[in-house]
Amino acid sequence: MAKVGVILSGCGVYDGSEIHETVISLLAFDRAGADVVCMAPDMEQAVVNHLTGESVDGVNRNVLEESARIARGEISDIVKIKATDLDALFIPGGFGAAKNLCDFAFKGSDCEVHPEVARLIREIVASKKPLAAVCIAPALVAKVLGSEKMDPQVTIGTDAETAGAVSSMGATHVSCPVSEFVIDKENKIITSPAYMLASNISEAAEGIEKTVNALMEMLDD
Amino acid sequence: MAKVGVILSGCGVYDGSEIHETVISLLAFDRAGADVVCMAPDMEQAVVNHLTGESVDGVNRNVLEESARIARGEISDIVKIKATDLDALFIPGGFGAAKNLCDFAFKGSDCEVHPEVARLIREIVASKKPLAAVCIAPALVAKVLGSEKMDPQVTIGTDAETAGAVSSMGATHVSCPVSEFVIDKENKIITSPAYMLASNISEAAEGIEKTVNALMEMLDD
Repeated sequence: MAKVGVILSGCGVYDGSEIHETVISLLAFDRAGADVVCMAPDMEQAVVNHLTGESVDGVNRNVLEESARIARGEISDIVKIKATDLDALFIPGGFGAAKNLCDFAFKGSDCEVHPEVARLIREIVASKKPLAAVCIAPALVAKVLGSEKMDPQVTIGTDAETAGAVSSMGATHVSCPVSEFVIDKENKIITSPAYMLASNISEAAEGIEKTVNALMEMLDD
Repeated sequence: MAKVGVILSGCGVYDGSEIHETVISLLAFDRAGADVVCMAPDMEQAVVNHLTGESVDGVNRNVLEESARIARGEISDIVKIKATDLDALFIPGGFGAAKNLCDFAFKGSDCEVHPEVARLIREIVASKKPLAAVCIAPALVAKVLGSEKMDPQVTIGTDAETAGAVSSMGATHVSCPVSEFVIDKENKIITSPAYMLASNISEAAEGIEKTVNALMEMLDD
């Protein structure tokens, strides 16, 4: 049974993992016969009120604890997970991927990636194991692998400013519609726009389900 | 386009709406061509740390704000929603359904249902519009309609103690496997066990998707 690591970043589109993207991924992996290993960094995060869209001052939450909501408690601190524990890695989107797993939402191409997240991405790619990321998460993959001069090919959809930032981190950005995905065969990376472009949950699901299936097929190669 | 109201109760299996059940439902309704209207009560809730499973003392969250995480901000206070705004109603499970929408988790068959939740359920059933509920949520439907001597037929799966409590609220409990659902044609109520019985997300999805499709078919009758 293939083991797929899933890196979560909280629980909610504006300050954590995008919930629809994550659940759609978990279901697609389960239906494809994969065993999912959810993980997140044990760190503080800022909070956004999802009813108003405004920041909540003076309150922090813990990324690992909030991520545990989506994982129904079955989640590990990312420091405990090594590439040798996994056959593949998946990173859903949401602002948590750009605020907690890295600070791309604040610093763009000058962002820094959480050291444990960067470590696991590097380990997976060095092991020639496949990695998929959707929505804004390809930006942090671009940062980690662009810094290593691996020229990753990824998509975040079609947004010109974000695509420009991705390119300036040493990646090649490929424009992609919401229902499709981009494969970097050299580096075994699959990416799809999801809610960077999706106008409803079905559109997000179409690209994510194709991405998950492409990852599973890559495991069989 | 059919409008389906979805009553949320927070965000997370132990103190809110069960996230997998909710997202699977939202996706199934969208794929079936329904327009979903998410809503929740504007009220305080207790918090459970989903990493440890323990209560967090001295901290409250707001059910409407937390539910907004699953709904990506597109959610209404339930006081603003009437049955005339909807063609059908759906209630996912999670402990929030039994702790926030009612207090069945604490008081069993002596529970009280949040007045706005009870009001909308009564309005929907009185309007002969279909209502579906999964996991533990059928317990609150049993309370509301059992009190009205409507003898609703519902399932919460096979758990004898919970089924007994459901029966003692004036409902008829029907045992049901996770992949199936129970229809009360008289009252137009559809229920399915979901995570009351599911051992993984695919099992939960199978019964929920069938429940959503049965609700959509009932709208066409």
